[in-house]
Amino acid sequence: MVIECVPNVSEGRRPEIVAAMAEAIRAIDGVRLLDHSSDASHNRSVFTLAGDAAGVERAVLALVERATADIDLRTHRGEHPRMGAVDVVPFVPIEGVTMAECVALARKVGSEIASRFNVPVYLYEEASNDPARKNLEDIRRGEFEGLAAKMAKAGWAPDFGPAAPHSSAGATVVGARMPLIAYNINLATNRLDVAKKIAAGIRHSSGGYRYVKAMGIMLEDRGIVQVSMNLTNYEKTPIFRVFETVKREAARYGVQVLESEIVGLVPSAALNAAAEFYLQIEGFKADQVLEHKLRHE
Amino acid sequence: MVIECVPNVSEGRRPEIVAAMAEAIRAIDGVRLLDHSSDASHNRSVFTLAGDAAGVERAVLALVERATADIDLRTHRGEHPRMGAVDVVPFVPIEGVTMAECVALARKVGSEIASRFNVPVYLYEEASNDPARKNLEDIRRGEFEGLAAKMAKAGWAPDFGPAAPHSSAGATVVGARMPLIAYNINLATNRLDVAKKIAAGIRHSSGGYRYVKAMGIMLEDRGIVQVSMNLTNYEKTPIFRVFETVKREAARYGVQVLESEIVGLVPSAALNAAAEFYLQIEGFKADQVLEHKLRHE
Repeated sequence: MVIECVPNVSEGRRPEIVAAMAEAIRAIDGVRLLDHSSDASHNRSVFTLAGDAAGVERAVLALVERATADIDLRTHRGEHPRMGAVDVVPFVPIEGVTMAECVALARKVGSEIASRFNVPVYLYEEASNDPARKNLEDIRRGEFEGLAAKMAKAGWAPDFGPAAPHSSAGATVVGARMPLIAYNINLATNRLDVAKKIAAGIRHSSGGYRYVKAMGIMLEDRGIVQVSMNLTNYEKTPIFRVFETVKREAARYGVQVLESEIVGLVPSAALNAAAEFYLQIEGFKADQVLEHKLRHE
Repeated sequence: MVIECVPNVSEGRRPEIVAAMAEAIRAIDGVRLLDHSSDASHNRSVFTLAGDAAGVERAVLALVERATADIDLRTHRGEHPRMGAVDVVPFVPIEGVTMAECVALARKVGSEIASRFNVPVYLYEEASNDPARKNLEDIRRGEFEGLAAKMAKAGWAPDFGPAAPHSSAGATVVGARMPLIAYNINLATNRLDVAKKIAAGIRHSSGGYRYVKAMGIMLEDRGIVQVSMNLTNYEKTPIFRVFETVKREAARYGVQVLESEIVGLVPSAALNAAAEFYLQIEGFKADQVLEHKLRHE
């Protein structure tokens, strides 16, 4: 049984804080810290853990404990939208576990976070039953600064926890979903409007691909802009199609793609699909990959 | 300990013969048949086995027994150069085994093939100590039809076995090497000269990339041509660079790349490198691949 969990926390500038969080996760049995990365522009870090339900639960609670103690959103600044010290906690079925089991785990952990740390919790994606509160962006809209006012409105009482934001830790979103790819494309320009227009054209909400979330942001430290994306179903909306579209759209503005980056983990099938596309490989089968064949024969 | 072995046999048109060979391999303990593919144009099949030294040895001998019984080179026609019913038997170190151990195995198996089946055997690549007899193409030049005359010449006595070709099975080349990628690019044209010129430009022997062997052939059944290649060091001469060069060279003749194919197995690192190139991924690490991380954490 392998459950993946990919908590995003609102700290990406103080390496010692992030390191303490990583250590807190590593100290837990039954779970492995597969990866973590921090983005100073976003002022955000992403941890990737994997293990059984009990281990993953313990690790998330240890992480929330550290984040609630060390992060104060009242002084937090960064390019990435955020509502909580621990902003989002998705559970992902990887092997030997169903989505339903991950949904149950999300609800259990969400309830624990709320009661233990007095932080309001919203369920999202597969763990949510309310279409208005399924999408992370809809729940997070208004961010930390707008949260008190939002929570006072009808329809925005949290799924667990207090009816008002935690004064320094905000609120946390917890849920279950399929694996996604956090994928950023950096453009060789400082024109933020270009990145924003491309993001608007490529994301589902404003007319783009069905399984793409995107926003345009400025990378202040580098003087360039970024189309920052989540690819929420890499089988149906593949990474190479998104890349080619962004590249073509950027060319309309006389702008080149400088580079791209994958944040955290990526399923090998997504990279294989890109190789297959660009190399025009006919008849390719997953079990032609040597490492795959050796494990599954 | 995992040793890979990739015997190429001169039969690609009679599926029942090939199936019998696959069965003979599967019947052996300690070895797995990972893959096999046949090419009717080439009139050749490639088997990919993996296991420990003893299992791989037994499987190869079982394969040679079947091939020697079922293939008669005197009536064999096909696009791919061949010298033996079993044309070449490379051993490849994959895990927990050194090249030196694979060389020793190649010499042992080469000697067995010669004595058991009365087939002359030449050692090649890492198993050969003679620079004139290291490269498969140099040993195979003249093919089956020119073998008797070649073996009469100084410097071409085999490493094991009789001093003249086996009347129906020719001679077999046995050795050890690093993993290679069998990679073909099909062009949307029937002009064989185009494929031959591109192959000449891309292969090391006539001025091309260091780790590429290539030839241009006609696919009679489809009326198109193919640049048929072995990429002998995919880390140093990557698949994407070869593809892009073939594509550009074909454009010089007004010809498009129709498709490409990978024959047999390909290391995941080769596909990842292609994805990284085309998607312009910066800072990519092998352990960002989910399946890799889960196995190696």
